[in-house]
Amino acid sequence: MADLKSKFLKAYSVLKAELLQDPAFEFTDNDRQWVDRMLDYNVPGGKLNRGLSVLDSYKLLIEGRELTDDEIFLASALGWCIEWLQAFFLVLDDIMDGSHTRRGQPCWFRLPKVGMIAANDGVLLRNHIPRILKKHFRGKPYYVDLLDLFNEIEFQTASGQMIDLITTIEGEKDLSKYTLSLHRRIVQYKTAYYSFYLPVACALLMSGENLDNHVEVKNILVEMGTYFQVQDDYLDCFGDPETIGKIGTDIEDFKCSWMVVKALELCNEDQKKILHENYGNPDPSNVAKVKALYNELNLQGVFAEYESKSYEKLITAIEAHPSKSVQAVLKSFLGKIYKRQK
Amino acid sequence: MADLKSKFLKAYSVLKAELLQDPAFEFTDNDRQWVDRMLDYNVPGGKLNRGLSVLDSYKLLIEGRELTDDEIFLASALGWCIEWLQAFFLVLDDIMDGSHTRRGQPCWFRLPKVGMIAANDGVLLRNHIPRILKKHFRGKPYYVDLLDLFNEIEFQTASGQMIDLITTIEGEKDLSKYTLSLHRRIVQYKTAYYSFYLPVACALLMSGENLDNHVEVKNILVEMGTYFQVQDDYLDCFGDPETIGKIGTDIEDFKCSWMVVKALELCNEDQKKILHENYGNPDPSNVAKVKALYNELNLQGVFAEYESKSYEKLITAIEAHPSKSVQAVLKSFLGKIYKRQK
Repeated sequence: MADLKSKFLKAYSVLKAELLQDPAFEFTDNDRQWVDRMLDYNVPGGKLNRGLSVLDSYKLLIEGRELTDDEIFLASALGWCIEWLQAFFLVLDDIMDGSHTRRGQPCWFRLPKVGMIAANDGVLLRNHIPRILKKHFRGKPYYVDLLDLFNEIEFQTASGQMIDLITTIEGEKDLSKYTLSLHRRIVQYKTAYYSFYLPVACALLMSGENLDNHVEVKNILVEMGTYFQVQDDYLDCFGDPETIGKIGTDIEDFKCSWMVVKALELCNEDQKKILHENYGNPDPSNVAKVKALYNELNLQGVFAEYESKSYEKLITAIEAHPSKSVQAVLKSFLGKIYKRQK
Repeated sequence: MADLKSKFLKAYSVLKAELLQDPAFEFTDNDRQWVDRMLDYNVPGGKLNRGLSVLDSYKLLIEGRELTDDEIFLASALGWCIEWLQAFFLVLDDIMDGSHTRRGQPCWFRLPKVGMIAANDGVLLRNHIPRILKKHFRGKPYYVDLLDLFNEIEFQTASGQMIDLITTIEGEKDLSKYTLSLHRRIVQYKTAYYSFYLPVACALLMSGENLDNHVEVKNILVEMGTYFQVQDDYLDCFGDPETIGKIGTDIEDFKCSWMVVKALELCNEDQKKILHENYGNPDPSNVAKVKALYNELNLQGVFAEYESKSYEKLITAIEAHPSKSVQAVLKSFLGKIYKRQK
């Protein structure tokens, strides 16, 4: 497994070198330096879970035999396309949110010489995906399906981002918009498709499958991605900052978190008043009142109940799938996230 | 022709209605309103030359017979994809440049409720293109070539935008970087591919041609697009503001214009000093000194010479093309721009 990861990491250098020699554009050394630095700064610095899971999933799908070096490279290339997609979203999200840090360093657009050029760099990152796909998959029977897949999922992610952005337009802080249905739509479109379904869909295409036959796999993974984000929302409030590596600020930031949405669902009129008066306020005393209310409503217990119900539902759906190797892929994903503390 | 234009305009309403019902995303009425308004604000308000030229070119390519309604709609849809691509670039460019107005109205990101959400709207505009292509061209033999074409040209345009941005990074105003070669690369990649080659390439694909057999058509159109931008640079300085509908500010804005690049090429050391001291300064007296120098160097004559040489070169190249209908397409393009005053 360590060997697979090191091969995955090596593929990044190959892909980057190819992009810097792309014959569709006349690079000068100066241009190459810019793109080189921009890629190293934005693409490989995350946990790489999404990218690596293409490789893991493909290995489970073909079961039994060893992967060839060619297969490892191709699955890695698809994994890196997902990391490139994520980098594109993060660079633009940071500009839109006015964020300061990302992955323990200043956001790309915060660097003195970068600034708003970052928006175009984001577009470049997105454009690298079809360059990678064309170079390595143009002759494959599933090439057009890969293009359609990345296009559809990028569209869904941008649409999820849109609903997130337009429900929290500045000056319109309105808790009454925060419903379970809105939360589900934001999470499903903004996160679940590209983080959970896309890696497995890439692996399925590479192993010769037609995605039209795998709607149920999509549904399960989108459900799992939703569960994952609910965990994230829970940990932001009740997780151990030491373990998760950051201090949550969803309450201060007026986020449409599963926590507040559940609280709104369960509270009485007096409690609702407390939420309206305190949610989205950076003052620690306001935050404390919201957390006290979450405790009063036993959201820890409500979450534990949600978690075990989700798990049961997912396991049942997975075990109903006709293919043992697909089951293995889905169970591997679920195993990585069930009851996670970070 | 007026009939074709009205059919082209009608296609916009059809495409918009389809996008607002896209089954890949669960819209609420609120989401639909946002996208509807965003599209109307950003997509159809330009001159539509690029979009209409797909239709014009296709008509010339099939020569002799009437277009069917189906052909008119499909060529219009491809034309609108180019307008959508342009809208995507313009929305992001305006954010990056901190512009105030576009097409006689405030830039989209300047609207109070929009702000930075505009960056994601730009991404959505870009994502609409593959949605349109998938809906109307998925079964066509040239579908994958259309996807490759739009991907490659978007990559080239973003790369052109990159070199434009990184050569004019704030605080590094350095005229010595401005060479004819840099100017040619910016113009070719940032403008010529998507404005001149892309419409004709779409028409060629629709008429069943393989683009690999039309490298010469690409070269001619890229050359024509370069000539077009040189005219633009010239008119910014020496055009009639009444006729072109705006007052040029390339000198004030320190633009890598063909004018300054030519001036740098032709000037002596004393004149170069004048350029370095005055170019990129908003004060009218500085601008006047630059314009006086342009006159001293007879840039009007140099441009007239460039214009007639370009025309001759292009006509010779066009007449060497084996297909009369392709010649007609190229001559129609050239006729529209030769010696234009606006």
